[in-house]
Amino acid sequence: MSKDLDMISQHESVVASYIRSFPTVFTKTKKHKMWDENGKEYIDFFSGAGALNYGHNDDHMKQKLIDYITNDGITHSLDMASDAKADFLKKFDDVILKPRDLDYKVMFPGPTGTNTVESALKLARKVTGRTDIISFTGGFHGMTIGSLSVTGNSMKRQGAGIPLQNTVTMAYDNYVDQDTVEYLERFLEDNGSGVAIPAAMIVETVQGEGGINAARFEWLKKIEQVCKRWGILLIIDDVQAGIGRTGSFFSFEAAGIKPDIICLSKSLSGYGLPLAVTLIKPELDIWKPGEHNGTFRGNNHAFVTATAALDYWKDDSFEKEIHEKSEITYNFLQRLVSEYPELKGEVRGRGLMVGIASEADGLSEQIAEECFNRGLIMETAGPNDEVFKLFPALNIPKDDLQKGLNIIEESIKALVKNPVTN
Amino acid sequence: MSKDLDMISQHESVVASYIRSFPTVFTKTKKHKMWDENGKEYIDFFSGAGALNYGHNDDHMKQKLIDYITNDGITHSLDMASDAKADFLKKFDDVILKPRDLDYKVMFPGPTGTNTVESALKLARKVTGRTDIISFTGGFHGMTIGSLSVTGNSMKRQGAGIPLQNTVTMAYDNYVDQDTVEYLERFLEDNGSGVAIPAAMIVETVQGEGGINAARFEWLKKIEQVCKRWGILLIIDDVQAGIGRTGSFFSFEAAGIKPDIICLSKSLSGYGLPLAVTLIKPELDIWKPGEHNGTFRGNNHAFVTATAALDYWKDDSFEKEIHEKSEITYNFLQRLVSEYPELKGEVRGRGLMVGIASEADGLSEQIAEECFNRGLIMETAGPNDEVFKLFPALNIPKDDLQKGLNIIEESIKALVKNPVTN
Amino acid sequence: MSKDLDMISQHESVVASYIRSFPTVFTKTKKHKMWDENGKEYIDFFSGAGALNYGHNDDHMKQKLIDYITNDGITHSLDMASDAKADFLKKFDDVILKPRDLDYKVMFPGPTGTNTVESALKLARKVTGRTDIISFTGGFHGMTIGSLSVTGNSMKRQGAGIPLQNTVTMAYDNYVDQDTVEYLERFLEDNGSGVAIPAAMIVETVQGEGGINAARFEWLKKIEQVCKRWGILLIIDDVQAGIGRTGSFFSFEAAGIKPDIICLSKSLSGYGLPLAVTLIKPELDIWKPGEHNGTFRGNNHAFVTATAALDYWKDDSFEKEIHEKSEITYNFLQRLVSEYPELKGEVRGRGLMVGIASEADGLSEQIAEECFNRGLIMETAGPNDEVFKLFPALNIPKDDLQKGLNIIEESIKALVKNPVTN
Amino acid sequence: MSKDLDMISQHESVVASYIRSFPTVFTKTKKHKMWDENGKEYIDFFSGAGALNYGHNDDHMKQKLIDYITNDGITHSLDMASDAKADFLKKFDDVILKPRDLDYKVMFPGPTGTNTVESALKLARKVTGRTDIISFTGGFHGMTIGSLSVTGNSMKRQGAGIPLQNTVTMAYDNYVDQDTVEYLERFLEDNGSGVAIPAAMIVETVQGEGGINAARFEWLKKIEQVCKRWGILLIIDDVQAGIGRTGSFFSFEAAGIKPDIICLSKSLSGYGLPLAVTLIKPELDIWKPGEHNGTFRGNNHAFVTATAALDYWKDDSFEKEIHEKSEITYNFLQRLVSEYPELKGEVRGRGLMVGIASEADGLSEQIAEECFNRGLIMETAGPNDEVFKLFPALNIPKDDLQKGLNIIEESIKALVKNPVTN
Repeated sequence: MSKDLDMISQHESVVASYIRSFPTVFTKTKKHKMWDENGKEYIDFFSGAGALNYGHNDDHMKQKLIDYITNDGITHSLDMASDAKADFLKKFDDVILKPRDLDYKVMFPGPTGTNTVESALKLARKVTGRTDIISFTGGFHGMTIGSLSVTGNSMKRQGAGIPLQNTVTMAYDNYVDQDTVEYLERFLEDNGSGVAIPAAMIVETVQGEGGINAARFEWLKKIEQVCKRWGILLIIDDVQAGIGRTGSFFSFEAAGIKPDIICLSKSLSGYGLPLAVTLIKPELDIWKPGEHNGTFRGNNHAFVTATAALDYWKDDSFEKEIHEKSEITYNFLQRLVSEYPELKGEVRGRGLMVGIASEADGLSEQIAEECFNRGLIMETAGPNDEVFKLFPALNIPKDDLQKGLNIIEESIKALVKNPVTN
Repeated sequence: MSKDLDMISQHESVVASYIRSFPTVFTKTKKHKMWDENGKEYIDFFSGAGALNYGHNDDHMKQKLIDYITNDGITHSLDMASDAKADFLKKFDDVILKPRDLDYKVMFPGPTGTNTVESALKLARKVTGRTDIISFTGGFHGMTIGSLSVTGNSMKRQGAGIPLQNTVTMAYDNYVDQDTVEYLERFLEDNGSGVAIPAAMIVETVQGEGGINAARFEWLKKIEQVCKRWGILLIIDDVQAGIGRTGSFFSFEAAGIKPDIICLSKSLSGYGLPLAVTLIKPELDIWKPGEHNGTFRGNNHAFVTATAALDYWKDDSFEKEIHEKSEITYNFLQRLVSEYPELKGEVRGRGLMVGIASEADGLSEQIAEECFNRGLIMETAGPNDEVFKLFPALNIPKDDLQKGLNIIEESIKALVKNPVTN
Repeated sequence: MSKDLDMISQHESVVASYIRSFPTVFTKTKKHKMWDENGKEYIDFFSGAGALNYGHNDDHMKQKLIDYITNDGITHSLDMASDAKADFLKKFDDVILKPRDLDYKVMFPGPTGTNTVESALKLARKVTGRTDIISFTGGFHGMTIGSLSVTGNSMKRQGAGIPLQNTVTMAYDNYVDQDTVEYLERFLEDNGSGVAIPAAMIVETVQGEGGINAARFEWLKKIEQVCKRWGILLIIDDVQAGIGRTGSFFSFEAAGIKPDIICLSKSLSGYGLPLAVTLIKPELDIWKPGEHNGTFRGNNHAFVTATAALDYWKDDSFEKEIHEKSEITYNFLQRLVSEYPELKGEVRGRGLMVGIASEADGLSEQIAEECFNRGLIMETAGPNDEVFKLFPALNIPKDDLQKGLNIIEESIKALVKNPVTN
Repeated sequence: MSKDLDMISQHESVVASYIRSFPTVFTKTKKHKMWDENGKEYIDFFSGAGALNYGHNDDHMKQKLIDYITNDGITHSLDMASDAKADFLKKFDDVILKPRDLDYKVMFPGPTGTNTVESALKLARKVTGRTDIISFTGGFHGMTIGSLSVTGNSMKRQGAGIPLQNTVTMAYDNYVDQDTVEYLERFLEDNGSGVAIPAAMIVETVQGEGGINAARFEWLKKIEQVCKRWGILLIIDDVQAGIGRTGSFFSFEAAGIKPDIICLSKSLSGYGLPLAVTLIKPELDIWKPGEHNGTFRGNNHAFVTATAALDYWKDDSFEKEIHEKSEITYNFLQRLVSEYPELKGEVRGRGLMVGIASEADGLSEQIAEECFNRGLIMETAGPNDEVFKLFPALNIPKDDLQKGLNIIEESIKALVKNPVTN
């Protein structure tokens, strides 16, 4: 074991998990590649769990960041005004909101995904005066108590050490062979159901941690309609699926819905720096000053890179590029499933947020491990880690995308030929 | 109004608060100084609410950070191993823990204060199998539901929109003219008190947001003894009081106690970058892998600057320097209180975490406003903003410290001579 | 208005409800009949909301009660031993439990339905160490906070004034056009569903307040199997459906299931006196002494009448009698639905726990009101009072049963011919 | 062991507790005496835990009850109108409320103490729109989840199996050597205390289960003032201390306070039959019909005896009689404490709700056991059963009172001479 790996294992809490899947010390990264201390090169199909949609250390953002630091721009500003924040807000409005005919106030709730989710839940309760939130099976929204209460994973929930309250879980799209929206609405319209009209529903259009489950657009539209009918706020948690991962800036664009509140984080800063925003329909922006806050809500380094990242969205070329690579990837996965029946696989997802759910016990984890050995970083998802999950950088060149896919296929071949029992 | 200020006001949520106290656009900062878009210079007695104890954009850290970025070090690593993390862990152990005879596992719970507090509460509940946490009047621990449930401020609590549960609030030191530990223990030893033995107590040794209330060392020791007697974990939330603010790296060193769990954030990265750790006694580190996580728990830029910042602690010169400036500041405040009876003031705090609580309605806020106009950034604290709070950079030169103090005195003079009615 | 009615309206809280449906003062009752202060006679198809299955003031029980009182038997004994309690326990075992091959410990949790439900929920949580209870849409279990948290009715739930916690509501049989057990079990087997394995499920085999919804035996059997598979305790709340109402002593006998815990009250005392028991499988009887208690858990007058009431169950003649009257009643209701399409009616229920759900807005309430005017006491049920509910005494003579049915038909005729708009 | 005792032990749940303290089968009772199956006579200083303040089977009430039953008066009426209820309401107003210049609406919340407490908590939350209730150390209010959440005893609380929420426990009078009202109010007036303005405070003027702690009138008055100042409803739980136990009908009369809501049960029916009322200031009676209900809220047998029992209160002779016996009892206890230093005793209580708290480990329980052997029924109270508790019938003749006291003294003598180690 390397000295550094040893050092880390000795001093860091046993809660660390990725270090177990990828047991090496990373020293350098660029775009869609990573190198470890031994100089071994990896193609990255993990992308910081969705926080690095533009790859690592993008040169354009890097230059802007170095310039800002060099010139002693303000680094930490809480919610004071800074020129870096002003620039971000202006460009976000110009490049993202206005062209999509969207009008939202931008809240900086603290720099992480769980901060934006907590702020969204609070605001929905404040606006409606109701306490319950409807969340969905397979949902993942964060690890602080408010966000955890709308998260489905039982291991994570038990980690709370207290009962998680004020939430009702309903079935996500395709969870059962039934119309799950109809079932949900039956509870709302029945005064005797035991389920009160909630403050909000919180939805991921594609569930990442939950196992790369993509809701149909029709289902999302129905959910929006039910929300409108009953005066329920619709919160889209776009922390993982947003910022291009499914092919458009927001993951819900293709579904034609307009959420009341949107949660963004992960790839928002573009460079892997902590940043989150909560987008709020103007009429819902009824916070008292400071009613929600957080020390790192003004992370100006992230404002700088986030502003630079928006250049990707100035025209539709980036979306087209994602679309092409999605097709390649999707077709590849479809072929895998049919050519390797031992996978007992099902292709999941949308855009470049895809994977294969394997019914073969433990196989997905073995594939990910084999890929790592062969120079590809890829993780698993789903309640039983039954899905291997492809999250390449959106701007990965096609030939390196193909190289990564090849490693996956080779890994599967190796495992299926040499079956490993768990 | 400036264009940028206008831009921000139009697009940012009304939840923003500091922009109201300091209504200008900041464009540059260095050490203990800030400049706005009009070139106006400010001395900073605010220090990012305690996140900038070493001042802004410290040159040593800045260089290390630029080098790291330039060389394409890994930026975002979750809890994978990186050389930057290894360096930080090693140096933290060498410079901070070992010399103080402390032995803790380091958890990276996500990069903000509320992340570390939430992880501490979870772990305490998991370890003990109990649900309640005892917190204290005036406590501030964060804005996510778990942390908010142990926070005292009623406006912030109401922002939750749900009842906050599984906590019991007890009186902090000096809250009433009584021995508050004795009162607390009476509840623990009485089977009929309605208060169960809790999983943990969470304590700030000096309460920042709560109004710069410093607990006596004797009180802290008693709290530690009560915790030991009843098998309760002692969590010290050192997010604001730690990292030198009270004169030593940890705020509890002078009290001679050894907490079971320690929460650090704010000034930990040294440069204002989001970073937090939860320090855990090794025998309590019983997490399952991934039982608590967070996308930005591996913020390597912050590891780099945090490692550089530890150089301040290689010997005791920095502590001595803080001590000298504390004396100057404390004496100044004592003099203010006695020379300006109109303040109806009481000096509060410890180290360079000090302020004056004024019983004159609204006066503290007026003083802070006047200071801002005269080129000094300073905020208020306490449940009714009745305390003006001095948080200069710990490494501020003495002459500029004195300049700042002068501005405060001049502001008071101006106000007391020209009393303003609210 | 009569003097007494006036007196009551003036002094009693506005929370009283039946006085609004039946605005007269009752002075005498016997068997299945009631008389008011004006001497008007009513046939009682209400039976104290199921607490008077043997009719009012049964002569056999009455004599036993008068004898006991006359001889100064102990009236109030908490959980001390009394001969009246011993007699009840012995006879209950001999007449009810043994012949049905059932083995339960008997707990006296306080004399009302909500007391037994609260004790059952507590015990299930204690035994399993889990916190959640699964309840069902349309369920009604009582008005104290524990029982209310598993009750569906939204108006009653809102009366709590606090969020009701630690429960999950699932769809009762026939709630949607789907297999609701399959849906439920999907949540249990999925680690990512957000629904934890609960301590217990609490089920009514026929829901009274919820609208006379009868679960199919097949559904009940499946629920029992799911409970066994996952180690979940099955609580049957037989407070309203038990004691012969559906044709057998326990309502679940025909379904062939054996609950872990059974809640009985209402008609248990036979005479309308407050009494409740919680039946517990012996291996689950792990209470500490006094861990649950209640001042009136030893109501000896009720023990005396309850013991006398058990004579009805010494052989199967009573069950046969109920069965015959059920057939008469059920056929009558079926005919009503088909002959009066204006009812938009659906026959609901089982045994002598039956009714018609009418989709015609407000019609069921009008029918009940008209019946009252014509000398029949009958109430409505369901979340919107859309069901009129027939609860005659089980021992009502067939001719008086028929008289009551005739009044219902006449009332419907009068209303359908003379439609009233709400 | 007797057959019946054996029968009961075999069939009844192990939750039963008094059968352990008084291991015999009671067959007959009259006034202040009880007889067991062996004909052994006991003087009753237990009085059904306060439910038999007028002794057992009072002849006047008995005759009224037998007449009512004989004439087939309505037994079970829910909240329909009955002549028995009208009579009770009229007499309660004439004999109790009007002479005391009190004006309350009467709610029948179900027939037990916990029913009235639950209804009071609900109403307070509904009226104020707030969720928290302040309860007090040592408080006992019932075993259903709402009442249990304001009950202090830790063993009972743990029986809930879930965290008990929406309550804050404050120190009762004399709980610490400090002014506990001042401490409480400090929390209310401080916006940073973490304790919100509650819906209500729920107080026993003398705590029975909690250990016969009597609050000073001055303390009760201060509590009332604090409630008024902050718009908090004052609920007096007079379930155990009311109905003459402390010398007046309501226990709070001597303190000169007027609660917003009053809970009565236990001795209200006079005869040991289940009955409870919630008294509500008229302006607070804002229930929706049926928003709280309960099957046995119309227990007419209890209305009949409760009405008869009110004859005790037609003039002040009964109060005088209680007062005399209180003096005798109190003086006796004072003498015991001084003459038997081994008791390490402290006299507690007020009126005929008195006892001795002994610091000698287990001694109080031994005394109660010895008394039982010598023909006196008496129980212990307090979180560690450290108080032996004298609850004779209020109408016990003085000579039999003295006999009972003598048995206590003899028992103590026997134990102190023959000390038993636990």
